[in-house]
Amino acid sequence: MSKNLTKRAEDYSKWYNELVVKADLAENSGVRGCMVIKPYGYAIWEKMQQQLDKMFKDTGHSNAYFPLFVPKSMFEAEETNAEGFAKECAIVTHYRLKTDENNKGKLIVDPNAKLEEELIVRPTSEAIIWSTYKSWVQSYRDLPLLINQWANVVRWEMRTRLFLRTAEFLWQEGHTAHATRQEAIEETEKMMNVYAEFVENFMAIPVIKGIKTANERFAGADETYCIEALMQDGKALQAGTSHFLGQNFAKAFDVKFANQEGKQEHVWGTSWGVSTRLMGALVMTHSDDNGLVLPPNLAPIQVVIVPIFKSDEELAAISDVVNKLADELKSLGISIKFDNRTTQKPGFKFAEWELKGVPVRVAIGPKDLENKTFEIARRDTLTKEIVAQDGIVHYITNLLKTIQASLFDKAKFYRDNHITNVESFEEFKEVLETKGGFLAAHWDGTPETEEKIKELTKATIRCIPLDGVEELGSCMLTGNKSTKRVLFAKAY
Amino acid sequence: MSKNLTKRAEDYSKWYNELVVKADLAENSGVRGCMVIKPYGYAIWEKMQQQLDKMFKDTGHSNAYFPLFVPKSMFEAEETNAEGFAKECAIVTHYRLKTDENNKGKLIVDPNAKLEEELIVRPTSEAIIWSTYKSWVQSYRDLPLLINQWANVVRWEMRTRLFLRTAEFLWQEGHTAHATRQEAIEETEKMMNVYAEFVENFMAIPVIKGIKTANERFAGADETYCIEALMQDGKALQAGTSHFLGQNFAKAFDVKFANQEGKQEHVWGTSWGVSTRLMGALVMTHSDDNGLVLPPNLAPIQVVIVPIFKSDEELAAISDVVNKLADELKSLGISIKFDNRTTQKPGFKFAEWELKGVPVRVAIGPKDLENKTFEIARRDTLTKEIVAQDGIVHYITNLLKTIQASLFDKAKFYRDNHITNVESFEEFKEVLETKGGFLAAHWDGTPETEEKIKELTKATIRCIPLDGVEELGSCMLTGNKSTKRVLFAKAY
Repeated sequence: MSKNLTKRAEDYSKWYNELVVKADLAENSGVRGCMVIKPYGYAIWEKMQQQLDKMFKDTGHSNAYFPLFVPKSMFEAEETNAEGFAKECAIVTHYRLKTDENNKGKLIVDPNAKLEEELIVRPTSEAIIWSTYKSWVQSYRDLPLLINQWANVVRWEMRTRLFLRTAEFLWQEGHTAHATRQEAIEETEKMMNVYAEFVENFMAIPVIKGIKTANERFAGADETYCIEALMQDGKALQAGTSHFLGQNFAKAFDVKFANQEGKQEHVWGTSWGVSTRLMGALVMTHSDDNGLVLPPNLAPIQVVIVPIFKSDEELAAISDVVNKLADELKSLGISIKFDNRTTQKPGFKFAEWELKGVPVRVAIGPKDLENKTFEIARRDTLTKEIVAQDGIVHYITNLLKTIQASLFDKAKFYRDNHITNVESFEEFKEVLETKGGFLAAHWDGTPETEEKIKELTKATIRCIPLDGVEELGSCMLTGNKSTKRVLFAKAY
Repeated sequence: MSKNLTKRAEDYSKWYNELVVKADLAENSGVRGCMVIKPYGYAIWEKMQQQLDKMFKDTGHSNAYFPLFVPKSMFEAEETNAEGFAKECAIVTHYRLKTDENNKGKLIVDPNAKLEEELIVRPTSEAIIWSTYKSWVQSYRDLPLLINQWANVVRWEMRTRLFLRTAEFLWQEGHTAHATRQEAIEETEKMMNVYAEFVENFMAIPVIKGIKTANERFAGADETYCIEALMQDGKALQAGTSHFLGQNFAKAFDVKFANQEGKQEHVWGTSWGVSTRLMGALVMTHSDDNGLVLPPNLAPIQVVIVPIFKSDEELAAISDVVNKLADELKSLGISIKFDNRTTQKPGFKFAEWELKGVPVRVAIGPKDLENKTFEIARRDTLTKEIVAQDGIVHYITNLLKTIQASLFDKAKFYRDNHITNVESFEEFKEVLETKGGFLAAHWDGTPETEEKIKELTKATIRCIPLDGVEELGSCMLTGNKSTKRVLFAKAY
């Protein structure tokens, strides 16, 4: 099956597009820019959701649900935010269809059902949520509000790619309100750290924590924190953002509280989100020319068991051994699939589960029955081993941990080897084109220089790393003074 | 707190509206007809989701996600379905806003960003899903497709009520495809049974299983199965529907498969759904004049523990006992809240948790410390008991089961006492106005008679019960022959 997959070295972008479809993760729909997330892809997203949801609840957040639509007047209340999203909004203008009298069986928009005020399909929910918070907050006792929403949002993108950039996507958006600036900043940083922990420990993707420049900041935020990952083609991908909103939305929606002294103050806000875009990052970080490679912590099927048999009797004898193993693994919370289809040959099954990235494959045939062994194959390294049936459960649970750690290490090794200090703009361009990855360079801190570099090279500042050290230098483009390197990259 | 709640006997409808808001379940938003589901309400919905999702997966279904938007031409492909929903569709016509040159800081719809084809915000997803299934099904080996989606949908309702009828609501929609008519009918019935099991065992609401008349059938279905519940005001509420779609969508979207003989056939379909409307049913079935009453199986907080103390020392001594109890209950999977706020008095807390419907309240004061007891209060019966600390965990786990069963029994007793056989149209009108509930009556089987009865009385046929017995009779309105009683009621 995997034979027909384009190789990464040939055309990375084509490889990605093909893989997402061939591995049954998602496909384009009949609706411009919108995708269908197929059951296998959705099962991975569900695992991500479950883990993130747990982490949000463990840090004191509750889920709620706010409307899909935002009336235009509400949408435009926070002007910076509205301007930032105005160019990519789906807009509902009518609320009824009627039969087309000139065309039997067809419908037309009923011109008599025009809305008095247009509704924006939420591209993000700050406006609708802050308009709600106004009535939820009176006193400091009502704070903090720590709320998250799992939802679909729509941003009208002209060029779309499955998971990475779609008109509709699924995400979670946290929206919190606090009594003090300090507390809101702490929340913003805390959620960036939650994201980093999730992406590193579950997705096995190393990230760099940093702050966005003003150019790249969320529209309506005072500061945007982010985690940045690196894909196998040397391009960066923003894996999550956490915004310190200052009092911008509180002022736009008049959300005030009486502090302990009874004085009225505006509330401080944050918002933070990750989306189905993470699915794209997951695919692009670990997968290879044979197909998907999934980290065990997010794989819908962690272990697939393939029987090798010629007769019903052989299958029955193998099934006895397999069912015992399956029960033991399941009791440990390991998700397994016993692929006992009689319509497909083992070779076909091997290729299929390889394409779908199942971390561990167990094969068992008559010879294994005799020798009391299994053949165990690792998806990440494509290595095989014969292992005794005795102690196999322990072996597999350890192997899953090993694979999880190994995927992270491999990605980190690649990432660390693709952070390059560059000292001149010539070197910058050279490294960007030949090696790619993150380029740590001095920059004079102005939006104009950043814009100019983007025009000339398509590279943007991914972030000002939080762990960056003070270092005097001069901007690679203008020669002006700089005190810290920032990370540039071409990005998704 | 509950003091200000309107009494059911005074104004049932007002009682409901007030209760949903006061118990922090949901509120109206700034968007016409759309609600905000607040954290406490959403926590109940999450419990419903988790259980239903498990039941769907246990019956072989997988989750997936399909686009929010349906292009008009796709929407109208299955004509009956399209006509059924045409009058209540939100329609996206533009994809961009621009700054209003005459009004600084304001936005207007950009007339240059008109869509070539309008997009319907899904009122239900048959059209988009069957247009997708076309490419997923080639051979009988690809069947059945057993897919579910958790999503938001929009139906432009003119008169809305929180949970019961909102323009946007949350739901799940199952969409399955089968090789044979028989298998599709079995699936339709299976999912009706899954819904009945969920509603009875988790929501503690007894339901009647039945089939809808042609008038009340889902637009585009050949048969609609339903489960019908009865609210405390004697009005019925449709709690879930499961539709046998025949080959209607397969034909509209040309979904064919090669059968085992290699012959092309159209696929058979089903769809089935329950929504946040169930939240309304939950509130209206069990709650009383003091507030919410929640069945333990769905209560976000099953046990609340309120300390009665005058000094910090007393609170500390109480906390020692409570923390031990809390740990034990948590280890059994029971969700508890220790309400140790120092800002509110016990009486306030009692009223708050009563309003919010927490099934079991544990109170403990200095006297209890001395006597090694707790005061245990049941929310459903409002009774209190002093119970020894020794054996308390066993007592509470049993009590939760007792409450769950008792709520169901109470609702069933009420429901059973509100199914009345009526023999004439005079009696029908009399019982409908004085007693309400389900009226089992003979009907001649014609849509005209059904329509006429609805016009005259506002009662509709809720269902033709599946367990109804053959019984010769004559239609209460026309006197024409009838072979079975059907259930009429006024309904939500």
